[in-house]
Amino acid sequence: MTLALIILAAGKGTRMRSDLPKVLHPIAGAPLVVHAMEAGKPLSPERCVVVAGHGADLVRKRVLAHDPTAEIVLQTEQLGTAHAVDQARAALEGFEGDAIVLYGDTPFVSAETLGDIQAARASGADVVVLGFEAAVPGKYGRLVVEGDRLARIVEAKDATPAELDITLCNSGVVCADSATLFDLISKVGNDNASGEYYLTDIVDIANADGKRCVAVTCDEAETLGVNSRVDLAAAEAVFQTSRRRQAMEEGATLVAPETVHFAYDTKLGRDVLVEPNVVFGPGVVVEDGVELRAFSHLEGCHVGQGSIVGPYARLRPGSDLAEGVKIGNFVETKNAVLAKGAKVNHLSYIGDASVGAEANIGAGTITCNYDGVLKHHTEIGENAFIGSNSALVAPVKIGARALVGAGSVISRDVPDEALAMTRAKQEVKPGLAAKLRARLLELKASRKK
Amino acid sequence: MTLALIILAAGKGTRMRSDLPKVLHPIAGAPLVVHAMEAGKPLSPERCVVVAGHGADLVRKRVLAHDPTAEIVLQTEQLGTAHAVDQARAALEGFEGDAIVLYGDTPFVSAETLGDIQAARASGADVVVLGFEAAVPGKYGRLVVEGDRLARIVEAKDATPAELDITLCNSGVVCADSATLFDLISKVGNDNASGEYYLTDIVDIANADGKRCVAVTCDEAETLGVNSRVDLAAAEAVFQTSRRRQAMEEGATLVAPETVHFAYDTKLGRDVLVEPNVVFGPGVVVEDGVELRAFSHLEGCHVGQGSIVGPYARLRPGSDLAEGVKIGNFVETKNAVLAKGAKVNHLSYIGDASVGAEANIGAGTITCNYDGVLKHHTEIGENAFIGSNSALVAPVKIGARALVGAGSVISRDVPDEALAMTRAKQEVKPGLAAKLRARLLELKASRKK
Amino acid sequence: MTLALIILAAGKGTRMRSDLPKVLHPIAGAPLVVHAMEAGKPLSPERCVVVAGHGADLVRKRVLAHDPTAEIVLQTEQLGTAHAVDQARAALEGFEGDAIVLYGDTPFVSAETLGDIQAARASGADVVVLGFEAAVPGKYGRLVVEGDRLARIVEAKDATPAELDITLCNSGVVCADSATLFDLISKVGNDNASGEYYLTDIVDIANADGKRCVAVTCDEAETLGVNSRVDLAAAEAVFQTSRRRQAMEEGATLVAPETVHFAYDTKLGRDVLVEPNVVFGPGVVVEDGVELRAFSHLEGCHVGQGSIVGPYARLRPGSDLAEGVKIGNFVETKNAVLAKGAKVNHLSYIGDASVGAEANIGAGTITCNYDGVLKHHTEIGENAFIGSNSALVAPVKIGARALVGAGSVISRDVPDEALAMTRAKQEVKPGLAAKLRARLLELKASRKK
Repeated sequence: MTLALIILAAGKGTRMRSDLPKVLHPIAGAPLVVHAMEAGKPLSPERCVVVAGHGADLVRKRVLAHDPTAEIVLQTEQLGTAHAVDQARAALEGFEGDAIVLYGDTPFVSAETLGDIQAARASGADVVVLGFEAAVPGKYGRLVVEGDRLARIVEAKDATPAELDITLCNSGVVCADSATLFDLISKVGNDNASGEYYLTDIVDIANADGKRCVAVTCDEAETLGVNSRVDLAAAEAVFQTSRRRQAMEEGATLVAPETVHFAYDTKLGRDVLVEPNVVFGPGVVVEDGVELRAFSHLEGCHVGQGSIVGPYARLRPGSDLAEGVKIGNFVETKNAVLAKGAKVNHLSYIGDASVGAEANIGAGTITCNYDGVLKHHTEIGENAFIGSNSALVAPVKIGARALVGAGSVISRDVPDEALAMTRAKQEVKPGLAAKLRARLLELKASRKK
Repeated sequence: MTLALIILAAGKGTRMRSDLPKVLHPIAGAPLVVHAMEAGKPLSPERCVVVAGHGADLVRKRVLAHDPTAEIVLQTEQLGTAHAVDQARAALEGFEGDAIVLYGDTPFVSAETLGDIQAARASGADVVVLGFEAAVPGKYGRLVVEGDRLARIVEAKDATPAELDITLCNSGVVCADSATLFDLISKVGNDNASGEYYLTDIVDIANADGKRCVAVTCDEAETLGVNSRVDLAAAEAVFQTSRRRQAMEEGATLVAPETVHFAYDTKLGRDVLVEPNVVFGPGVVVEDGVELRAFSHLEGCHVGQGSIVGPYARLRPGSDLAEGVKIGNFVETKNAVLAKGAKVNHLSYIGDASVGAEANIGAGTITCNYDGVLKHHTEIGENAFIGSNSALVAPVKIGARALVGAGSVISRDVPDEALAMTRAKQEVKPGLAAKLRARLLELKASRKK
Repeated sequence: MTLALIILAAGKGTRMRSDLPKVLHPIAGAPLVVHAMEAGKPLSPERCVVVAGHGADLVRKRVLAHDPTAEIVLQTEQLGTAHAVDQARAALEGFEGDAIVLYGDTPFVSAETLGDIQAARASGADVVVLGFEAAVPGKYGRLVVEGDRLARIVEAKDATPAELDITLCNSGVVCADSATLFDLISKVGNDNASGEYYLTDIVDIANADGKRCVAVTCDEAETLGVNSRVDLAAAEAVFQTSRRRQAMEEGATLVAPETVHFAYDTKLGRDVLVEPNVVFGPGVVVEDGVELRAFSHLEGCHVGQGSIVGPYARLRPGSDLAEGVKIGNFVETKNAVLAKGAKVNHLSYIGDASVGAEANIGAGTITCNYDGVLKHHTEIGENAFIGSNSALVAPVKIGARALVGAGSVISRDVPDEALAMTRAKQEVKPGLAAKLRARLLELKASRKK
């Protein structure tokens, strides 16, 4: 069925106490609104209309970065959910197909549930409302179902005692033929205490029109909304718990799953070992048989089969490790391509560089990629050996099988198989250490007086 | 109302299995006894008398460090709680006002509860005892309330079955007019199995005297006492859970709240982002809009608005970051003032130093602040650029807009806008790497024989 | 009683989705099968026969590494548990004593439970079967006990409704006289749906023979089996929770116990402070009064009394710290002996080295222990002071009380009390920084065109 998503993302989210619009707060490295867009993706929607309001410029930018085909419409005043949906009317003028209303702060509606909604539409429902069985129905609106029809939605404050006993509550998610939806919305009034236009009112209007309304039920967890930072942390936890379980089921060992933090798009191969306290930013692909040791941090990188990373390794965007690479403790890589079997074991910064197969980069090596204005590239050949504490001043090329002496500052290219070094003569002054120390101790004593 | 706190802090805490006195074991970076002192602070007590015993010297030192106006009295023998309170008699001789007895190992009594106790005193109670509704009353003493009076406190072992059904239990916290309290205590005897003087006995004595005793009730969590390291960890967890929630409610995002460890005095601004695994020691102030990235560790420092810290940054005491400073991975700062926009992105130690606005400190830079005897200062001017892997031998001053070449050891001052470097000539020996490697392989082979 | 363990360790563990045999997946740094072997140790078994199958070569290697006296037998086809036990028949031919069947994927059977099994044997049971009270009996086999005898084991699918109500379930652990066990097994048939030989069938056979079968009961947690990575993580969590509690009860402070990850053999002294996020690999011994600060990682090392380690310290195998040693942030040690009071405070790699008492190793110091082919040793004398950012090119010896200037590359021995340094002259070019920067900015601008 041809489908348009309408995602309501205009709210300020006062309870977030933030300058950032609510729907841009992230879960697993992606904003809430992106999770909502992704939730709709399994339905292959033809159109995706995001209704922005507070912080609309930021929201537009982030939404388009994620999906350039998305459309942004503005809700300049916040006059209720029906009013918000109505802002998509012009964009969807003439669109033939269904429209489904999702929420930018409700990231977890499942593909299965959306499938159920479509199935309900296919079997003759004019309006489908998504409900959930609430553990504590409290202030939620109740879905009053009679036979196989949704008779009405009752707000908790207007409900009879019998209606308050209903546990099937309103998620706010609605699906209908697009033209029908906007027709129903045009009949919604704002004659109520807050003077707002409520999307839920379309159920009464549809029923009065002789249309068929139906409720579809999902898990309460799918309708988890984010209204505060505490909610945000809870939603993050829901995501992480599920993602960790998935990783284990797919064949990764997570020694302490509760300490591993995934991004929304992390990809892990089989027989990957993840030690405690590993953090993934967006854009990470880890191949089979990799060991990610404790306290590692990866973003925007590819880790080839059988590589060993960490502990305390930081792989930044553009790090591309081939098979069997070893990145050790207190090592940072950025925009760096490391060929098969390359080793950077300790205390190094490898940025804007390529490192050849089986090259060995000694402890404390720094690629000096920045001169204060421009960034430059370092190339290290296969089987090269860089002595410890060396600085490679880019642009520079170290040849294959070359050797750089410890403590060197290399600013000119080194040919293949050559040895290069910069080293002043070692001077030794016998007895001078003792004298110096004595002098310093005297000085210290005199200062104390 | 004029008030004196009496804090009982003499116990050894055998079950802690520690050489440290129990009340000095820390929660969130502050000893239990300091939490107890802080708990009483909202009442603005005029006097604070701490009864020390085991490890009294250490306790005195730590208490006075926290509050130099506090008074320490000694309980040389442990003869019961009434005896412990009695040690404060001389210190409070002539004091006119109320005395409230708190416990050095019970850190969480709330300001609200203490207010309730004062209110009870104000409405005519002579002796106020704090009780809590116990989930599992077990061995706790029961508060027997008749009408609006506390009739008596019954130890569980002496209780009738009906009394055992009481769930209101004794916290040990007591409040009375100071003179009255000491008068009651002087009548407490030790004619019991353990030969100790029990503070709870004052209720019977007061009632027999025609005085009015009253019970005030608080949450069980407030009376959580620490008797073992397991209790200590549980109390720490209670503190952290509450502090994390508070941080989120005040407008910080904690991606994984359960991995963030606060100190008792951490201050976070609005729209601060805290990634997983951040640890705060005491004395940290973080301004609005700061990003604290994963695996960072902060103590005794100030982080200016919009700064980005970490991942893997360690800010030690005396680190003062202005607005928009960037401290990157594997960087340690100590006693270092960084002006607006300064950057120290990788693998550096900046200690006893000042860094000017927009200065850029290259990877692997070390301020050599210690000569083995004395510490010295390094000054880096605004917009200076320090090349990677440099050592700045303090005392030394790098001028504004100066440039230090990579791998230099700078031991003399560098003027503004000058370039400075120490670098030996780069020597290249063609083919030598191959020869050396062959020789080493031979050597290795010969050793194996 | 003379005893043989038979440990079934032949399964593939398809649900692990792994190339590693199931019993080699680790908990707390040791493979499941090693935990099973260790579980049996309190009984001082005379023989330990491990039945391997999938990945038998790897299993043999790992088992023998842990206990060279263990015996490995092969089960080449997987024909059921009775068949698996039968593979140990030849190995135990003529063995006089009891045999107890354990499982390589069930790591937590307690010494107390095994003692109960032996006691049951001692009081006349011919066959002892270990059961557990299941919270959710579900598909587990039920132990049907009549009087003090085990009448039979019923599979859930064959059970009557009354039998399904039984909560005492079969763990699979069995004990009998070795000869009796193999005699019973030889009578087990495979006339069932899957065509396998089931060990549980020996109960019916024994009862029919007039033998006495008895059930012994243990905690469900002890029979926790590992069939998937999710199970593995759950078992790891069970281990860690119990180990953390033990550490606290023995007198260590764990600020955030849930963030400390122990190995199976970690040893902590009294008054050890463990800050959040500390990871132990195998082989760590920590003496009294040590502080292990946040984000530290220790493997195969000894930490002497009162030492301070971390934050962000990595002690690798062969690190041996005497009393009062200080290892600070971003420091890695490996195969390094540090004498009393030695300090390595920042950003260093100390590998294949000995460091004398009270020596002070400056920030950024690297021992260059590897020349690309061979590893070499560095010796640093007592009270030596190594200036920051130095490279010590091994083999090399720095004398006692010697001083190495900052930024030096030391490749020849330094005598006691001498000062040594390699340093090129500091060149200063006034105004050149400004000119260079201007030129770079021009270049940048031209590139943008």
